[in-house]
Amino acid sequence: MPSLTYKEAGVSIAANTRWVDAIRACMTATYDPRVMNRHNAFAGLYRLDYDEQLFRRNYRKPVLVACADGVGTKVLLALQLGKLSTLGIDLVAMNVNDLITCGAEPLFFLDYLAVHELSPPRLLTLIEGVAEGCRQAGCALLGGETAEMPDVYRRGDIDLAGFAVGVVEFDRVIDGRRIEVGDVLIGLPSSGVHSNGYTLVRKLIEKSRCDLSAPLEGGTGTIGEALLAPTRIYVRAVSAVLEAFGRRRVVSAMAHITGGGLRENIARLLPGKVNAVISRRAWRPPPVFDFLRRLGVARGEMFKVFNMGIGYVFVVRPRNAQGVLRALRGVGEDPIILGRIVTGNGRVVLEG
Amino acid sequence: MPSLTYKEAGVSIAANTRWVDAIRACMTATYDPRVMNRHNAFAGLYRLDYDEQLFRRNYRKPVLVACADGVGTKVLLALQLGKLSTLGIDLVAMNVNDLITCGAEPLFFLDYLAVHELSPPRLLTLIEGVAEGCRQAGCALLGGETAEMPDVYRRGDIDLAGFAVGVVEFDRVIDGRRIEVGDVLIGLPSSGVHSNGYTLVRKLIEKSRCDLSAPLEGGTGTIGEALLAPTRIYVRAVSAVLEAFGRRRVVSAMAHITGGGLRENIARLLPGKVNAVISRRAWRPPPVFDFLRRLGVARGEMFKVFNMGIGYVFVVRPRNAQGVLRALRGVGEDPIILGRIVTGNGRVVLEG
Repeated sequence: MPSLTYKEAGVSIAANTRWVDAIRACMTATYDPRVMNRHNAFAGLYRLDYDEQLFRRNYRKPVLVACADGVGTKVLLALQLGKLSTLGIDLVAMNVNDLITCGAEPLFFLDYLAVHELSPPRLLTLIEGVAEGCRQAGCALLGGETAEMPDVYRRGDIDLAGFAVGVVEFDRVIDGRRIEVGDVLIGLPSSGVHSNGYTLVRKLIEKSRCDLSAPLEGGTGTIGEALLAPTRIYVRAVSAVLEAFGRRRVVSAMAHITGGGLRENIARLLPGKVNAVISRRAWRPPPVFDFLRRLGVARGEMFKVFNMGIGYVFVVRPRNAQGVLRALRGVGEDPIILGRIVTGNGRVVLEG
Repeated sequence: MPSLTYKEAGVSIAANTRWVDAIRACMTATYDPRVMNRHNAFAGLYRLDYDEQLFRRNYRKPVLVACADGVGTKVLLALQLGKLSTLGIDLVAMNVNDLITCGAEPLFFLDYLAVHELSPPRLLTLIEGVAEGCRQAGCALLGGETAEMPDVYRRGDIDLAGFAVGVVEFDRVIDGRRIEVGDVLIGLPSSGVHSNGYTLVRKLIEKSRCDLSAPLEGGTGTIGEALLAPTRIYVRAVSAVLEAFGRRRVVSAMAHITGGGLRENIARLLPGKVNAVISRRAWRPPPVFDFLRRLGVARGEMFKVFNMGIGYVFVVRPRNAQGVLRALRGVGEDPIILGRIVTGNGRVVLEG
């Protein structure tokens, strides 16, 4: 029997080494002085005690915060449209937006990229997007793994997952337990569908055979562009609010609006004896959601699957609501008062 | 046009919620007092300053250590043999064994599981394996993500990635820069192929049409069992050595032997002016490697792709070699003196 080498089996160790070298520049561009740059180390190293901090504070009782997430089947739409450049931003966003809900400062990020085969130029675009997301989130791209698995992924297919780690002072962990009747809900606009609901989006597009290069009715670009708009990263906005009030605890809770929409993502924060009442007339969902509704999503389903134009929600003390709005506007945000916390039984009520 | 719900599009949010509840018990079993158990939080929280430490020390200048890895196409072999129970151990092992090479104590782990569809009993076995790996590694399963993507993964297919975070005191980071001529290389046995090289392994099996339920020549079980043997987790062994010598720095470097074998994984540690000389007669590779050689791997390829029976390597000061061997034997290990560091040019020389 002729002998087989690893290359003949479909995996090239040399190509992998070249790939690692190619992405090193992307990673280095995101480093801050806390990253200990050790060439060829088995793992990434990050100092926690360094003098420079995003929030300008030291940690006496540091709590590490971590989460894992992917971008789901938005990958398939991006592949279909041949535009991988912003998927990395989606990936970082899905993770760091979760991370900051407890008040954490993002520290670093790692990615897992699984491919049929390494095709460096195309995939480098993707990693450049991850690095751009890390810059927007103020965190370091500390490491990652690229897995070449020709027998799992079809030619051209990829999958993408990420992991983020942050830190928050023990006494400043935000987790919803301070939510009180009277608190005000403030929303930040999303850039569109973000990174949830794409299995449904793609089914609708397939069924309707709609042309993704056609202009989006009521929008400014094509349908394809609207659907691929990168997920917004809310680190700067959240940081502005937390910094504006220093040690005063004006934020009762924060929610990242992902799969399950406003209802499910706010409900998980609520103590049992309150409801959140949200007025659907407080804002107008962007045109991409009208488009999806017209393609045939059941009416009741829209708010269950999509963020409907609100990507992140603050629950704040009423006397500080104006101050929070000011802090948000100060960093270029366009915040929306969505509603209030009332007595209830742990539910989110959408009115109007 | 009839309206479409998310369920009809192939994704069930309710099934996902049940799945999250099902794995919570697995996760909780791995918690130590440093995990802040917040039901329904967007991210996992882990206190760094708690009084209990694996290595019984506090951190004055903590350095966080992180890495990401998957188990590659060992997944496909496990699916073929219908045995997912130990893949989670492989996943944790691939990450924590990297983590501990710099002297870090593993703190927590997160997993990413991508599937065609949620089939809870089968997949729960997999997560139970992750939790068992975490117990062996002394770290908490702090979170994770299960992505249901019917359009990316074929029916029955899965992919699995993981992410580990640890901590090491700044002054005790181990990174190979202290390697000196005269240092001794000590190896720890692997349990077999571990989690690298499976694309090649599977091609060989397919080509030879060998029966995986046949007994392994020279081994104790079947060929399939030998190939799926879970990757060893070296946390306890490394911890024993580092604890035995306290603040004395007897370990110059450590390497986890993965893809690229002994040569590539030790070479990445070496300063430019030394070589590592390893005697291939110092140990006998386990029977599974004879089996793979007979199936038709080119002779020169075996040491490039596989660990050949050595899963982890210590580089230690010669006067402490006996003490390190004693510490390792004390926790039930069977360490092997592999060779020495000599003057050279950054290469690993396999002799004999």
